Amino acid sequence: MMKNFLNGELKNASLSQLNAVCEQLRREILQTVSVCGGHLASNLGVVELTVALHRVFDFSVDKLIFDVGHQCYPHKLLTDRAERFGTLRQKGGISGFPKRGESIYDCYETGHAGTAVSAALGLAKARDLSRQIFHVVALVGDGAFQNGLVYEALNSLRTLDARILIVLNDNGMSISPTTGGMHDILDELKGSRSASDVALFERFGLQYMGIYNGNDLNDLLPAVNEAKRRLKQGSVLLHVVTKKGQGYAFSECAPDLTHGISPQTPKAEYATALGEELCALARENDKVVAVTAAMTDALGLRPFFREFPQRAFDVGICEEHAAVLSAALAAGGMKPYFAIYSTFLQRAFDEVIHDICGQRLSVTLCVDRAGATGADGETHQGIFDLSYLSFIPGLVVAIPKNIAEFRAMLRVAARYNGPIAIRYPREGEEGVCTAVEIGKFEVLHCNTSNIIILAAGERCIRLAQRVRLTAADEGIGLTLVNARFLKPLDEEFLRSRSEQYVITLEDNAVKGGLGDAIAGFYRNSGKCVYSFGYREAFLPHATVTELADEYGLNAANILNCVKSCHAGR
Amino acid sequence: MMKNFLNGELKNASLSQLNAVCEQLRREILQTVSVCGGHLASNLGVVELTVALHRVFDFSVDKLIFDVGHQCYPHKLLTDRAERFGTLRQKGGISGFPKRGESIYDCYETGHAGTAVSAALGLAKARDLSRQIFHVVALVGDGAFQNGLVYEALNSLRTLDARILIVLNDNGMSISPTTGGMHDILDELKGSRSASDVALFERFGLQYMGIYNGNDLNDLLPAVNEAKRRLKQGSVLLHVVTKKGQGYAFSECAPDLTHGISPQTPKAEYATALGEELCALARENDKVVAVTAAMTDALGLRPFFREFPQRAFDVGICEEHAAVLSAALAAGGMKPYFAIYSTFLQRAFDEVIHDICGQRLSVTLCVDRAGATGADGETHQGIFDLSYLSFIPGLVVAIPKNIAEFRAMLRVAARYNGPIAIRYPREGEEGVCTAVEIGKFEVLHCNTSNIIILAAGERCIRLAQRVRLTAADEGIGLTLVNARFLKPLDEEFLRSRSEQYVITLEDNAVKGGLGDAIAGFYRNSGKCVYSFGYREAFLPHATVTELADEYGLNAANILNCVKSCHAGR
Repeated sequence: MMKNFLNGELKNASLSQLNAVCEQLRREILQTVSVCGGHLASNLGVVELTVALHRVFDFSVDKLIFDVGHQCYPHKLLTDRAERFGTLRQKGGISGFPKRGESIYDCYETGHAGTAVSAALGLAKARDLSRQIFHVVALVGDGAFQNGLVYEALNSLRTLDARILIVLNDNGMSISPTTGGMHDILDELKGSRSASDVALFERFGLQYMGIYNGNDLNDLLPAVNEAKRRLKQGSVLLHVVTKKGQGYAFSECAPDLTHGISPQTPKAEYATALGEELCALARENDKVVAVTAAMTDALGLRPFFREFPQRAFDVGICEEHAAVLSAALAAGGMKPYFAIYSTFLQRAFDEVIHDICGQRLSVTLCVDRAGATGADGETHQGIFDLSYLSFIPGLVVAIPKNIAEFRAMLRVAARYNGPIAIRYPREGEEGVCTAVEIGKFEVLHCNTSNIIILAAGERCIRLAQRVRLTAADEGIGLTLVNARFLKPLDEEFLRSRSEQYVITLEDNAVKGGLGDAIAGFYRNSGKCVYSFGYREAFLPHATVTELADEYGLNAANILNCVKSCHAGR
Repeated sequence: MMKNFLNGELKNASLSQLNAVCEQLRREILQTVSVCGGHLASNLGVVELTVALHRVFDFSVDKLIFDVGHQCYPHKLLTDRAERFGTLRQKGGISGFPKRGESIYDCYETGHAGTAVSAALGLAKARDLSRQIFHVVALVGDGAFQNGLVYEALNSLRTLDARILIVLNDNGMSISPTTGGMHDILDELKGSRSASDVALFERFGLQYMGIYNGNDLNDLLPAVNEAKRRLKQGSVLLHVVTKKGQGYAFSECAPDLTHGISPQTPKAEYATALGEELCALARENDKVVAVTAAMTDALGLRPFFREFPQRAFDVGICEEHAAVLSAALAAGGMKPYFAIYSTFLQRAFDEVIHDICGQRLSVTLCVDRAGATGADGETHQGIFDLSYLSFIPGLVVAIPKNIAEFRAMLRVAARYNGPIAIRYPREGEEGVCTAVEIGKFEVLHCNTSNIIILAAGERCIRLAQRVRLTAADEGIGLTLVNARFLKPLDEEFLRSRSEQYVITLEDNAVKGGLGDAIAGFYRNSGKCVYSFGYREAFLPHATVTELADEYGLNAANILNCVKSCHAGR
């Protein structure tokens, strides 16, 4: 375990001492991530950069904002969290992302790409208006630099007239390798450093400084010092090249595979099935195309990109653009599957409404990492998608019970003419499934009792099965249904049921999801509807099981509910 | 009334005939907009440009996509809708935006800024994959050019490798004058045409052509012809300068005031009250700041911008950036009011969740144009905000009953420590109000009957009052409540009520809004809850009254519901 650094300790260290600190940080990160999981390559890459920033600035006063935030481990270790760092991503422990509640050194919380420059401008503007004096630094990766939000912020830099330092951490990667026009501009700067590329940034009101070796304190320290000096004249872009995974040979060679590390070997992944099924569908139908926003591997699309490079589109961390591109591909007669994490689809909310559903286009949204996702915490839980998709007119929303049913749904989507979202967690079991028909539930277990459980998604169906078996042990029977479509609801089925007690389970916020839809259908019917899902809260980092237990999907509570129903209370 | 043009008619016309067509279009637009309302200045500005595009391309085969889409009137007049143009924005008539169902000449629907380049890339990619041959043209204004989506699309232009023509319609305006770094680059191109600015676009894979006078066919026709020729080599950016409002003196002088024209003089506007109250609050509290995304006038913020220029931020059509900037201003100790239309707030959905509410920052969202807005149609109705705000943890959602109460809520927000959204329609009455306390309903009319109406917002409360009076005439009494907070719900009040029948009214999609929240609270209570709001549909253009009647907020239906409740059915 590292000791907490004392304030000012870095200020007086020699260069060799600073290099020793870097080694220590790297060791600590490797060791902790190997136990706790977390983001490895991005953190190893910014060790020297973070040390240099802390050497030159004083972040007990100055502000440091991490874009995305999964590169903040060295910062956490250098501020006041070294001694607790072993609790990384554990329930009640240190978060893997910046958290204001955790330390005064975390001034702004991030998790999704592209917010840091906007946030830096806001903090700097607030500083100037309240006549305070400190520096504001935004650390942005070249992957996030493609996101439209960064451009929007750069665009207003001069209008807002607030001095900030943007450190562009260019490692040529987001999670996948970075591509695109901005990447080419940055590459050009690394090569010939053409005047026109420098001029581009100057046009936006930035003093451009680059290129510096972000893994070499010799190069970096004078640069950061100079950048700080130049801040007196206005905003600065400091272009630094780092190596993702620096200092750990395996990670350097495979930064995409070591971007995020899981402590356990995952069970079967839905993503693998996505890749397999899309390839199979694409072989049958030359209209099938795949779209992703910089998540090819994590979403399982690598085989598709290999087999159908002409029909596979990675547009970088640009969720809005990916959604519109998908809509237009469909308008042009193609059959796009747009795969994305649940939490990141929030970024394309407006485009899902107007571009995809408003035009009733045949886009299939493959919504991965739906439900509680665990250790990444608040900004990565996929617990809102059922709520924000449920009211969009004309959208089909499907929730597979296992990987086999997920495959079947992907095939159903291929034949369906209109927008459809399929939401699923990361891991699951292959299992088997019956024929899938849009808008039709499936009865998993029949009983003549007065209680019916409608459960959506693998985790909740497993939970329901457990509850059913325990209840059966206590002589309480119940019917169990796979509520595999939130939209359209299986109204015919619901109408046909005679049970007095209806219990719903979903791996989503309980507000606005399946429970509300079922309760809405049964309104004024005299039936009692009890819903389980996540209560209204931002779920912090913890294991999925811990989150389920604590935030509303607790087997004991559901069993109690069943017992109450059985007792007719 | 203009006659429909015959296909090919423009192809054979002489220059003087084309100029005559331009005059005819201008006259027709002026005349129709003066009767029907609509977008004036933007359409007058693109008359020659549209004629030139139709002369050179054949949009029965080629594709033309309008960014935002409020500049498509000349296109509609030139294709197959001249004879129906007098029905513009009327129920069942021609839409003010591109609609695929209206004509084969409308290939992609727009309404919100920044989608056209993405959409053009999608259509072009679909074309290439299915081995079709046609051209794809995106017409984008310089206002929309600031939106992050455009940057995301440009960034992937080379990766996607699809030839498109982007016509940049540079009139120096969005609704307000355009500002920002990209605007400066475009301005520079208009002046010195520096090599570095041209190189910027080339770096993104575009052949840059400019500057051309977009209101002069002499200049324009050769340019569009040349652009078409160059499309063989790859994508082209054709930079054209037009005058918003061209050809109509008053509109030329006041393009911001003639951007959108209403056929009737509006009643009192909430926007006016916003400007007044924010100024008053800002005088008392130097932390109060205002943020807008290019809608200063429409949102009523002009007086604030005049009186507090240092504390007023217009970031251009960049809703995401505006939301993050607001969050960071709050994190820096300021008290930001971020004013935005309901439908455009969809663009900042993720940032409202994570940046504003996730960090529990004191940002006040002033959500204007909430509810059905009428003649602009599907993409401008503000009917989803209660649904998408209702499940965000920790957000207060307020719905004023009139302008006086809106003022009170703005003042309550000034003292409140946390995120709060106030949603309101464009027009209303000043009225009077009682003290506002967060999370507390207000009883407007008491009765000892068994029926209670909970209505939210001015329009629904007026509707409820009408229903109440008619019911009273028929001897049916009821209690009427101003349900002015969707979140937190007034649970104490709800718990205290003994009525058997609860009717909710809201100017929002009925799914996920107030009705669902009230029904959720009363679940399994034995009470009957009936909810009125807009049924699940994209509401087309029509008057607000027509939309209410047809899509779910119909006085007769509500009265029938009251009668049924009274009869105990």
